[in-house]
Amino acid sequence: MSKLRIGLGVDFHQLVEGREFWLGGILVPHHKGALGHSDADVLLHAICDAMLGAANLGDIGVHFPDTDNAYKDIDSKILLSQCAQLIGEKGYQVVNIDSTLCLQEPKIKPYVPQMQQVIAERLRISTEDISIKATTTERMGFVGREEGIMAYASVLLEKA
Amino acid sequence: MSKLRIGLGVDFHQLVEGREFWLGGILVPHHKGALGHSDADVLLHAICDAMLGAANLGDIGVHFPDTDNAYKDIDSKILLSQCAQLIGEKGYQVVNIDSTLCLQEPKIKPYVPQMQQVIAERLRISTEDISIKATTTERMGFVGREEGIMAYASVLLEKA
Amino acid sequence: MSKLRIGLGVDFHQLVEGREFWLGGILVPHHKGALGHSDADVLLHAICDAMLGAANLGDIGVHFPDTDNAYKDIDSKILLSQCAQLIGEKGYQVVNIDSTLCLQEPKIKPYVPQMQQVIAERLRISTEDISIKATTTERMGFVGREEGIMAYASVLLEKA
Ligand SMILES: [Zn+2]
Ligand SMILES: [Zn+2]
Ligand SMILES: [Zn+2]
Repeated sequence: MSKLRIGLGVDFHQLVEGREFWLGGILVPHHKGALGHSDADVLLHAICDAMLGAANLGDIGVHFPDTDNAYKDIDSKILLSQCAQLIGEKGYQVVNIDSTLCLQEPKIKPYVPQMQQVIAERLRISTEDISIKATTTERMGFVGREEGIMAYASVLLEKA
Repeated sequence: MSKLRIGLGVDFHQLVEGREFWLGGILVPHHKGALGHSDADVLLHAICDAMLGAANLGDIGVHFPDTDNAYKDIDSKILLSQCAQLIGEKGYQVVNIDSTLCLQEPKIKPYVPQMQQVIAERLRISTEDISIKATTTERMGFVGREEGIMAYASVLLEKA
Repeated sequence: MSKLRIGLGVDFHQLVEGREFWLGGILVPHHKGALGHSDADVLLHAICDAMLGAANLGDIGVHFPDTDNAYKDIDSKILLSQCAQLIGEKGYQVVNIDSTLCLQEPKIKPYVPQMQQVIAERLRISTEDISIKATTTERMGFVGREEGIMAYASVLLEKA
């Protein structure tokens, strides 16, 4: 049987005025930010969920419940590191990650290399193995109305 | 060339009062249930579609059309078994499945082990190879308004 | 380390009266068509993005910006060929693609074999390795109101 395993994570957050906008582990200048119990980093959450799912370790809500004060306003990079640890303990390593941010504004292309750097460091992988794409929803739905953002992450893991 | 193949299934159902809520092959206690020609099990449908797609066998609408009375109110576990048979006949077996339910309510975490058991039995795989995650959409969109539910399933198949 | 890599593409377009409806590289008879800078082929765009993402080559917006007149009304099959070239230059070939179109109308099942043929030719793969599925969103959201369409594509690449 194959040593590879597939995972897919999806995450959603509301966008509101007066919040910092954490995305892919960095602070993106914008008049709105994502609302959530943690720093509400939709991209890191989708990646965490994809990794946990591929390793059949439950989901981000199981490991870091939003009813637990320990995770209030927490930097999601800490959650990402913990997910890396969890899959490592089960003998898995990341082959590659491909992710997509769905948001109307701002353009995130200028921030992608820095996000890749931050994520690669936390997962101890090469920046070559973490892809971050972006698309609008063409002004449709809650993403198009700039009420929220969503992210998808697909991951391939390999048993060491 | 690799013996592995990837598949991704997505499914949507309306939630209405007065329907049983079948999810992951089990009956979930809730004041609403999913509307559909079959039992409207959004998670099993996404998994069926991912398996069929990975094996390039069309989709669930091709195999089990919602215009066919044979599938009226049918238990989707039967469809899941048939999809397992179809991919098996083409020489494929499931490596692993990772799925995500998007719904506002209820919390499905307590039901996940039973869902894994039911799906594993039908697919003749280990519960270790079927992951079920859940997320809300943070009250946004038709899922957030509890008008509907959606599910994603990613699957990795291997040629036997 | 595995020679395989995973990618996931997602795309969205508005549907409007008076536009040709290009989907999967072919012209689908319909009273509406997809709006966009190019021919707005949501399926080919999702496939392009999945391929680019798996090879960590950025996204379709990076390679073919919608602010560039070179891509005004362009046939997305040309973009697909260019993506095939780009991943080939990096040493990758497609193992398989599984895609899902989310649209309320029309039924696309009759067009699937032709779409598979067109895509397989452009990617120089077998039609057996390109799966196209379709689902409605059960009349929910912008897809359900026929204001727009979306597509998902998952791809598995292998280093040659
Ligand atoms: Zn989140
Ligand atoms: Zn369904
Ligand atoms: Zn597009």
